[in-house]
Amino acid sequence: MLSSITKPTFIVNEAVCRANIMRMAGKAKDSGVAFRPHFKTHQSGLIGHWFRDYGVNRITVSSVSMARQFASEGWDDITIAFPVNIREVDMISALAKEIRLNLLIDSVEVIAPLAAHIDSSVGIFIEIDAGYGRSGMNYADPEKISLCIESLNQSKHLQFRGFLTHSGNTYTAQNKDQITDIFGHDAGILKSLKDNFASGNPDIIISMGDTPSCSLVDDLSMLDEIRPGNFVYYDLMQYFLGSCAFEDIAVCVACPVTGIYADRNEFLIYGGAAQLSKEFLKKDQLNIYGQVVQFNDNGWGTPVNETFVISVSQEHGIIKSEPDFISLIRHGDILGIIPVHSCLTAKLLKDNMMIL
Amino acid sequence: MLSSITKPTFIVNEAVCRANIMRMAGKAKDSGVAFRPHFKTHQSGLIGHWFRDYGVNRITVSSVSMARQFASEGWDDITIAFPVNIREVDMISALAKEIRLNLLIDSVEVIAPLAAHIDSSVGIFIEIDAGYGRSGMNYADPEKISLCIESLNQSKHLQFRGFLTHSGNTYTAQNKDQITDIFGHDAGILKSLKDNFASGNPDIIISMGDTPSCSLVDDLSMLDEIRPGNFVYYDLMQYFLGSCAFEDIAVCVACPVTGIYADRNEFLIYGGAAQLSKEFLKKDQLNIYGQVVQFNDNGWGTPVNETFVISVSQEHGIIKSEPDFISLIRHGDILGIIPVHSCLTAKLLKDNMMIL
Repeated sequence: MLSSITKPTFIVNEAVCRANIMRMAGKAKDSGVAFRPHFKTHQSGLIGHWFRDYGVNRITVSSVSMARQFASEGWDDITIAFPVNIREVDMISALAKEIRLNLLIDSVEVIAPLAAHIDSSVGIFIEIDAGYGRSGMNYADPEKISLCIESLNQSKHLQFRGFLTHSGNTYTAQNKDQITDIFGHDAGILKSLKDNFASGNPDIIISMGDTPSCSLVDDLSMLDEIRPGNFVYYDLMQYFLGSCAFEDIAVCVACPVTGIYADRNEFLIYGGAAQLSKEFLKKDQLNIYGQVVQFNDNGWGTPVNETFVISVSQEHGIIKSEPDFISLIRHGDILGIIPVHSCLTAKLLKDNMMIL
Repeated sequence: MLSSITKPTFIVNEAVCRANIMRMAGKAKDSGVAFRPHFKTHQSGLIGHWFRDYGVNRITVSSVSMARQFASEGWDDITIAFPVNIREVDMISALAKEIRLNLLIDSVEVIAPLAAHIDSSVGIFIEIDAGYGRSGMNYADPEKISLCIESLNQSKHLQFRGFLTHSGNTYTAQNKDQITDIFGHDAGILKSLKDNFASGNPDIIISMGDTPSCSLVDDLSMLDEIRPGNFVYYDLMQYFLGSCAFEDIAVCVACPVTGIYADRNEFLIYGGAAQLSKEFLKKDQLNIYGQVVQFNDNGWGTPVNETFVISVSQEHGIIKSEPDFISLIRHGDILGIIPVHSCLTAKLLKDNMMIL
């Protein structure tokens, strides 16, 4: 199989990927929460299809374009988890006629332009900023939140569904305890908002669930819905964070070796920022853009000792290694690179994917 | 025009872009060096076509796929400025039958597999590492270089053309003097290699020329050929470096405003790592992923004061600004983001480009 590879190719290990999906679907079921996985990580019709085998029938995406793509692949219950872009209201309106669509708002000001253009039912989540500080309404300002709910409840087609947050600060947590704390804090905030607004809004859904929390927190039952995305592949960042075992990482990028510089313990692969992205992790004094693995009959093995992509330009990836490994490398060899952030790498190599 | 924009769109100001091309073509002519611009920055058939108007008929690319693309758009003299990937030898061989093709090697070991598959004439540059430390043969090892030249001279179809380097360390220089120094150092190395190997190889070409050097060094006549790429668009990195005036930047990304957080002097655009890339510059204590401009009748204006993209996730861009500017912003407004690194941004938004 590898013999056909001539340029950087995104490799998905189907068995590992399906195990990740099955595990998360099982955990959602055990916790009694709805499972609405985020499809921005893979953005693939084929991999989306695998989720069907584990009972998934509702999904999350991060753009109207992505909702359009998956709607045309048969998904009919989609949440666009990005504050509504009123520039796209015509495409949103068209989608809402076809599928069960949920949108996010984090300001009362978008309700009027939205209501003016939407003429079929659309679910609306109010995005809450529970501490991450990216988007969402300030949880500590219930009056503004209340205004939004009132305004939605007066609209004919905009149906208030509940509160949603993304605890992206788990990605910079230092350990499992910190992730558990962030989860507890944010879930507590959504839960108290749900309680506060329960009278008159008895069916409020609270939706949360980034990959680190959903992977590491045992009991998710405080929530009504989880929306992890990255877990389908995982990556080096999640592994460093402790969200997964190395064996749970379902993807790597197969790259040809195109230069060997034994005098400085480095070699060159065809595979740089245009394929791996510029996302990096800090390790000792180095920036790490990926870790090297070797392929075998079952996929790939454990990481090659101390062998990392330490710099990338557009198509160049420079790998630092040790003399013993470098002495084995030949021009034209294919090595696997475990990406730092699989969401970005998957998107960059969307047109060049291979299933193992 | 902007009124039709609904999602992140790569905007090219044609007048500025053409002025950049004309200026660099003129400089090459004045210095008496061949101009072989690098097309990896734009990767666009249309913009490639503009170069024809300034006498350009030979180009540089960074992959076999890109060479294939531009060959099919009528370019018949192409250098692939990346150490040859012997996995792609069949596609290279096919290309070599169609066009004047130059390849890079930085090891004697690739010559045999290359020679075994190529059955029409191909030019070969020996890539030299003159100090940047990415790819290329160590300039201080003339014996290895000599072995390569001998081996090439024994081959039927591989024609030794000369020495090529990329002085990528100019990108991290602190000022114009440092850039001039790096240029002088590296050009000197190529020149002495040319002199060393002149007997028996009278037509050696020395090829150099990153955008910072080509923009800032007045006299390029030590070289035979320059290959800058980024200058066609420039970007925030080049502006910070001093390679261009702000007015020379030919591109920005038009992004809709989707969230306003006046309490923390921030707002949200639809436009994140998937559009802008994760390339950043350091400014004070912040990571900067782009700078904000406002559109006007002629394109866009000077940068909005202290208004930068300070963090990106996949589709989210968070902008830090000042209260006066934030008070003017409305949901659905379209703002321009000057990208940090136009090469990566252009590639990410390849399918969503608009010419001004």
